[in-house]
Amino acid sequence: METVGIGLLGLGTVGSAVARRLMEQWELLAERAGATPALRCVAVRDVSRSRGFDLKNVRLVGDPQAVVSDPAVSIVVEAMGGIDPATGLIEASLRAGKTVVTANKAVIAASGPRLSALAAEHHAHLYFEASVSAGLPIVALLQGSLLGDRITALDGVINGTTNVILTQMRTPGVSYADALADAQRRGFAEADPSLDVDGWDAVSKLVILSRLAFGVNVTSDAVDRRGIRDVAVADVGALAQLGYRVRLLAHAERAASGAIHLRVRPTAVGPGHLLHAIDDADNAVIISSDLAGTVMLSGVGAGGGSTASAVVSDVVTAVRERAAPMTQPAPLTTPTLLGDEDLEVAGYVRLRLSAEADARALVLQALEDRGLAVDAAVDLTGLELAVFTGVGPRAVHDRALETLDTLTSVDEILGDLDRVEA
Amino acid sequence: METVGIGLLGLGTVGSAVARRLMEQWELLAERAGATPALRCVAVRDVSRSRGFDLKNVRLVGDPQAVVSDPAVSIVVEAMGGIDPATGLIEASLRAGKTVVTANKAVIAASGPRLSALAAEHHAHLYFEASVSAGLPIVALLQGSLLGDRITALDGVINGTTNVILTQMRTPGVSYADALADAQRRGFAEADPSLDVDGWDAVSKLVILSRLAFGVNVTSDAVDRRGIRDVAVADVGALAQLGYRVRLLAHAERAASGAIHLRVRPTAVGPGHLLHAIDDADNAVIISSDLAGTVMLSGVGAGGGSTASAVVSDVVTAVRERAAPMTQPAPLTTPTLLGDEDLEVAGYVRLRLSAEADARALVLQALEDRGLAVDAAVDLTGLELAVFTGVGPRAVHDRALETLDTLTSVDEILGDLDRVEA
Repeated sequence: METVGIGLLGLGTVGSAVARRLMEQWELLAERAGATPALRCVAVRDVSRSRGFDLKNVRLVGDPQAVVSDPAVSIVVEAMGGIDPATGLIEASLRAGKTVVTANKAVIAASGPRLSALAAEHHAHLYFEASVSAGLPIVALLQGSLLGDRITALDGVINGTTNVILTQMRTPGVSYADALADAQRRGFAEADPSLDVDGWDAVSKLVILSRLAFGVNVTSDAVDRRGIRDVAVADVGALAQLGYRVRLLAHAERAASGAIHLRVRPTAVGPGHLLHAIDDADNAVIISSDLAGTVMLSGVGAGGGSTASAVVSDVVTAVRERAAPMTQPAPLTTPTLLGDEDLEVAGYVRLRLSAEADARALVLQALEDRGLAVDAAVDLTGLELAVFTGVGPRAVHDRALETLDTLTSVDEILGDLDRVEA
Repeated sequence: METVGIGLLGLGTVGSAVARRLMEQWELLAERAGATPALRCVAVRDVSRSRGFDLKNVRLVGDPQAVVSDPAVSIVVEAMGGIDPATGLIEASLRAGKTVVTANKAVIAASGPRLSALAAEHHAHLYFEASVSAGLPIVALLQGSLLGDRITALDGVINGTTNVILTQMRTPGVSYADALADAQRRGFAEADPSLDVDGWDAVSKLVILSRLAFGVNVTSDAVDRRGIRDVAVADVGALAQLGYRVRLLAHAERAASGAIHLRVRPTAVGPGHLLHAIDDADNAVIISSDLAGTVMLSGVGAGGGSTASAVVSDVVTAVRERAAPMTQPAPLTTPTLLGDEDLEVAGYVRLRLSAEADARALVLQALEDRGLAVDAAVDLTGLELAVFTGVGPRAVHDRALETLDTLTSVDEILGDLDRVEA
């Protein structure tokens, strides 16, 4: 049986799991791939360190460029993470006509279309299943299924870290700081958690998914982003009492006009919604389309094993398709973004009423006067009121919130979130 | 742009939705496929009947063989259903070197491996995404993803009809007969519901999925099948009170030994289980594997639109891959079936105790004596008792049930079901 040489950049959690599978299950993989994927060369930080598993006959190098230029390597697996030097190494591999498998969401979000074009130009392939939600084969699904459908929306919980934190915050007495510290202790959050809690990780993934779903050339700038740092634990608790879950929801939609909207925002998710049950580190993506209706993919979205699962599956595919004719990637269109006057959302606002007579009624009346329906209003403790605002343009919501801030009936606006129902 | 001629067998609900999409969205499909799929010829029962949409320039014929032999047709879409004459028409198409797209689970379950080999022999392809759970791209997922994983189990709700009936039966006062009649009225069940309610439809789908997941050559005979006709509404109700849902669960597993077990049985699904929420006509499949952990795909499992979604996606894929090199399908192995002494299950039994003193304690003791743990026992109305038996070999469960039947402490065994927990 023919042998195909694999080079690996990085031997951290993901890289180690990939190397181990390639070494230990090569017969299974060879049977599925139609040729043997053989690990030839690995770039590591410390060449002398022991790995706890057998890397016999594999060349360990300190310089990642040595993997790229190793003539025995025809598929380069990038498992380093970060923009630099990963981007340059991927480029160099593709320019050398080598196929690349990467788990790097930052690189694909920033440069995916350019790298795909570069791959085609040099008769190579670029695979990136592992860049979004690890073990969930959502990239394959969007690339190879629903090909007769027009996708109208994506909704997902695609960042495990924030979901772990928000799940913890439902426990009475657990603050955001407590939940973050706990997530860090359990390995779900980095020492510097900004990429996750400020929404950047979810933004990268949403950009990648939106390109595939809508065929549009979007970048992270197009995403309306809000992280979870300022989510009040009082809102998580009050909403939990009412049957809601707060999740960092990633949402993309295409209007009938063709205009696109992408957002990553903490959102109150209603009891009948498919994402209501996605707790802790689980991930899920819902695809809405015109023929299939609603398809949901859910599972383990992070971690060495599930990320390695996606990487190794891509390696098998790369070996299978090594002789496939090169196809130029379909050109992406430059989208118009849906404006705040056209974008329909529902909301949730928690506020403290002033002692003014009829304050509650005046607040609800003010919202209606600003063109915003009120689906429900719930009295919380003291003078606190939770208002569930009905579906209406984002601009109307924002203006209504500004109005509330000026009313003498309102003492303080304490929290506001987007809201989705089943 | 190149044109690829499509022929269609059958213009029922699915066939009409496929034809409509091919006629109305040909530009979108052409862009995705890299060539234009053009509907050329359709076999219908009544050539003169009006269709409610434009079939201009499409040849309508009464004889399906005329579609197969039409030189303008290079991809044949089979949307007739049933074993005959569909099997013969698919064979004739493949022998003529024409690629086939089918939605026919009965044909694929009975003859899939033989037809795939026939396709390869004649340099054609065979696609059957629509044969399992319609719009859920589960076939593509098993063929093209998780390629580095060893799949250990599949669990699914893959028959919408029985799930609609069992969901209805949770409403107090609704009998099996009522629920079936209602499902028939709403178009979810056939006039003769046997294929669905006796489990045959789920068996066909499970056979197809198991071949893909485990690479084994199984047929319907290998499936431990029990339908829903004898599910007592009292069990559905009692279990609902305790937070359980009764579903027709399709389950396949591969033991470490390589032995396989497949079953389709009404099963009590515990509150934390992923399939607990899959009500009405929804479908879901959970794939368990060694690296990715648990992946679930859920959505609309039946109906013209979602089935057409899968068929048209396969047509686009077929056009895309028309120049791809033929690959012999991987050979399937002949599996050993897991015996009842090695197969671990949990159970639920509802029985009426006799008036004998200590009857309850004697029943529970008898189960323990037969080697079966009792997870819980719940007193229902009168002398009725629900027993949740612990995980143990199927053979031990069966023998314990036989023992109960002989005890003077037991008046009558009223119902028994498999049980799964999160």
